[in-house]
Amino acid sequence: MQTWEAITARRNVRSFTDQPVSSEDLHRILEAGRRSPSSRNLQPWDFVVVTDRAQLQELSTVWVGAGHVAGAATAIALVIGPAEEPGHRDEFDLGQATMAMMVTAADAGIGSAHSAVGDQDLARRLLGLPADRTCAYLISLGYPADRPLAPISRPNRRPFDEVVHWGHW
Amino acid sequence: MQTWEAITARRNVRSFTDQPVSSEDLHRILEAGRRSPSSRNLQPWDFVVVTDRAQLQELSTVWVGAGHVAGAATAIALVIGPAEEPGHRDEFDLGQATMAMMVTAADAGIGSAHSAVGDQDLARRLLGLPADRTCAYLISLGYPADRPLAPISRPNRRPFDEVVHWGHW
Repeated sequence: MQTWEAITARRNVRSFTDQPVSSEDLHRILEAGRRSPSSRNLQPWDFVVVTDRAQLQELSTVWVGAGHVAGAATAIALVIGPAEEPGHRDEFDLGQATMAMMVTAADAGIGSAHSAVGDQDLARRLLGLPADRTCAYLISLGYPADRPLAPISRPNRRPFDEVVHWGHW
Repeated sequence: MQTWEAITARRNVRSFTDQPVSSEDLHRILEAGRRSPSSRNLQPWDFVVVTDRAQLQELSTVWVGAGHVAGAATAIALVIGPAEEPGHRDEFDLGQATMAMMVTAADAGIGSAHSAVGDQDLARRLLGLPADRTCAYLISLGYPADRPLAPISRPNRRPFDEVVHWGHW
């Protein structure tokens, strides 16, 4: 798929068919995350891949907004360590990695949605994380149950001319 | 360009030729940012586009890591408002928007780099920002002075098998 098609077709998908994500597509999505830039190239992330239905269903209870994980073909848990110092850019860097993975998924027709994590103790237990690690986000992946991904002509966003300023505010 | 080519060709470019970024390419890059997802679709960002050489040179002094802005063809300042509440996801959302813009730039052969901002008073003055706004990041754009963008086969990153865990940590 052309890049612009993937960028404009990406949307939050929270309901998925039973079709699994192929190993090849999943590898590429993870590789896009691994390649993402990060502050001082610290690469503060680890990715835990979950495909077991019972584990996905349990994971979906770690946050009120994580319900879509229960029916996902695959979920990727973004795990970070303890912040090294004030001003640490983990959140920004995780955002970059997430978008790289979502666009790569969209390129393969795979929908995605992400969620924050509330119950860290539960997430740590379900994912077997060391005590000093935090599950920052979950990314659900799968084929959309509603309609295939296709470029969106009128996204639900603030108008371009309101968001963009030329030269000065 | 194919999506995977753009994802793998994107790299930090900090030195640029004199070639300007066309209006069409710039519009598409900004549109990719505008379309990015954000927590509760708040779209907490405004984008200020800078192409004036003197303004770019002054902007490059707002942070020790912003030197690349001085020679950029264009810079996009990512501006946010006051945080609404604790746990606000601005940083994560800005990371998503930044990656969407950088991949879209790479798709057109345009290099990018980003920088944090230290001297907010200076950034506010140079960009004409209201007092309650913060310039969170600067994205430099331009054609690479060293070599054209091309897919990178061996990125300087942690090994795939170290980053990715299957099922459990």
